Amino acid sequence: MTDLVSITLVTPQMGENIGAAARAMANFELSDLRLVNPRDGWPNEAATANSAGAFDIIPDATLFTSVEHAVSTSHIVYATTARPRDMRKEVLTPQAASKEIAEHIQNNQKISILFGGERAGLTNDEISYAQKIISVPLSANFSSINLGQSVLLMVYELFQARHDVTDSHLPDRDSAPTTQEELNGMLNRLENELAAHGFFRNPDMKPTMVQNIRNMFGRSNLSEQEVRTIQGIISALVGNKKGR
Amino acid sequence: MTDLVSITLVTPQMGENIGAAARAMANFELSDLRLVNPRDGWPNEAATANSAGAFDIIPDATLFTSVEHAVSTSHIVYATTARPRDMRKEVLTPQAASKEIAEHIQNNQKISILFGGERAGLTNDEISYAQKIISVPLSANFSSINLGQSVLLMVYELFQARHDVTDSHLPDRDSAPTTQEELNGMLNRLENELAAHGFFRNPDMKPTMVQNIRNMFGRSNLSEQEVRTIQGIISALVGNKKGR
Repeated sequence: MTDLVSITLVTPQMGENIGAAARAMANFELSDLRLVNPRDGWPNEAATANSAGAFDIIPDATLFTSVEHAVSTSHIVYATTARPRDMRKEVLTPQAASKEIAEHIQNNQKISILFGGERAGLTNDEISYAQKIISVPLSANFSSINLGQSVLLMVYELFQARHDVTDSHLPDRDSAPTTQEELNGMLNRLENELAAHGFFRNPDMKPTMVQNIRNMFGRSNLSEQEVRTIQGIISALVGNKKGR
Repeated sequence: MTDLVSITLVTPQMGENIGAAARAMANFELSDLRLVNPRDGWPNEAATANSAGAFDIIPDATLFTSVEHAVSTSHIVYATTARPRDMRKEVLTPQAASKEIAEHIQNNQKISILFGGERAGLTNDEISYAQKIISVPLSANFSSINLGQSVLLMVYELFQARHDVTDSHLPDRDSAPTTQEELNGMLNRLENELAAHGFFRNPDMKPTMVQNIRNMFGRSNLSEQEVRTIQGIISALVGNKKGR
């Protein structure tokens, strides 16, 4: 959880979206939610209901009456926009911005990310308080994305940039991976049973067929338990009730 | 827009989440939405309301009575889960899965991505139809993420993997970038005016101060128009109404 990055919603209208923003922040370990002139005041029942308990994890939102005020203690300000603006300011994807921000907060710099209200987003005046713009790459034919969704995508990317997320892993819960001895024991038995049952009709093809079977099971990263299961399957299919 | 990747919601409960999924798919150019036994039937008013018009862009959802049926024409099936499961199956982040999927669909393979219902996600039986698992990296302290949000993060990553998204750019709308001649002309004039107004009190420090000013403006990627604006600012401050 970090409070170095504040998420600032400027004139948000729907409590539901404020709640969704809070929920996304709790999901992705950000704790500083700021509201500039929320339409329906604060606290807001719809926000609480849609936050799924996020405010038990993060502090209550703080209220401000202007963007200038809300960002005053930050070192760098990013403004999110859906549509291109007529201004000379670097535009980054959430991913690229998150990489920058992750570096800045490692240097203990405070970051503000501004999100505009539902109807029209941030005004050009509000954006002028930001050093850079963040824009989500999306379909040109359907680019309406809601406030809660924008916050979610941004804080999701920031979490990934801040954490060393592992791309993929293979859980090993109930059983260790098989040894090659167990694997090849099973494969040799399968080959013998197949030979005994007339599977290899064309002797010239047998080596290739055996290799294919070996490759098929070899790439499956079988566990000890799974190899035992296959042994049981072979036993069952050949009618040997006692197993191997 | 591609229909090679189908998003399959298995026993979804809230129409709002089906609508949010449709909206996210339209945002990120996927068109094949499948529903397995939606609790409130189909069509669903809450889904339509929350889709923000997505069904004008993508076809209506198709209905199935089982996961096996819904995935039958796909080549590879991914199951999304929030919590770890007791099974030996590769677990990928949305980003890593999206890179794989982007390659698969370039080879014209059909992909199914399964999402479970709101209450408990996919059953282990439903997951057994999938080749791999996708899990969003998020806070261990607050890992409740809703169905619509999961779909959004997944299709967002897929869009990024399928498109050559530019990390950042500097829009050049109203004015060309300044030439170095204009930039340095402005900086030389500023230096002269500052010297004339006694800004450089310590002559030893002058070269460093001039370099700092040059660096500060140099990294701003000024446009022609902005250099003219700064010229005007200098003129105004020194009391020269005619400009340079």
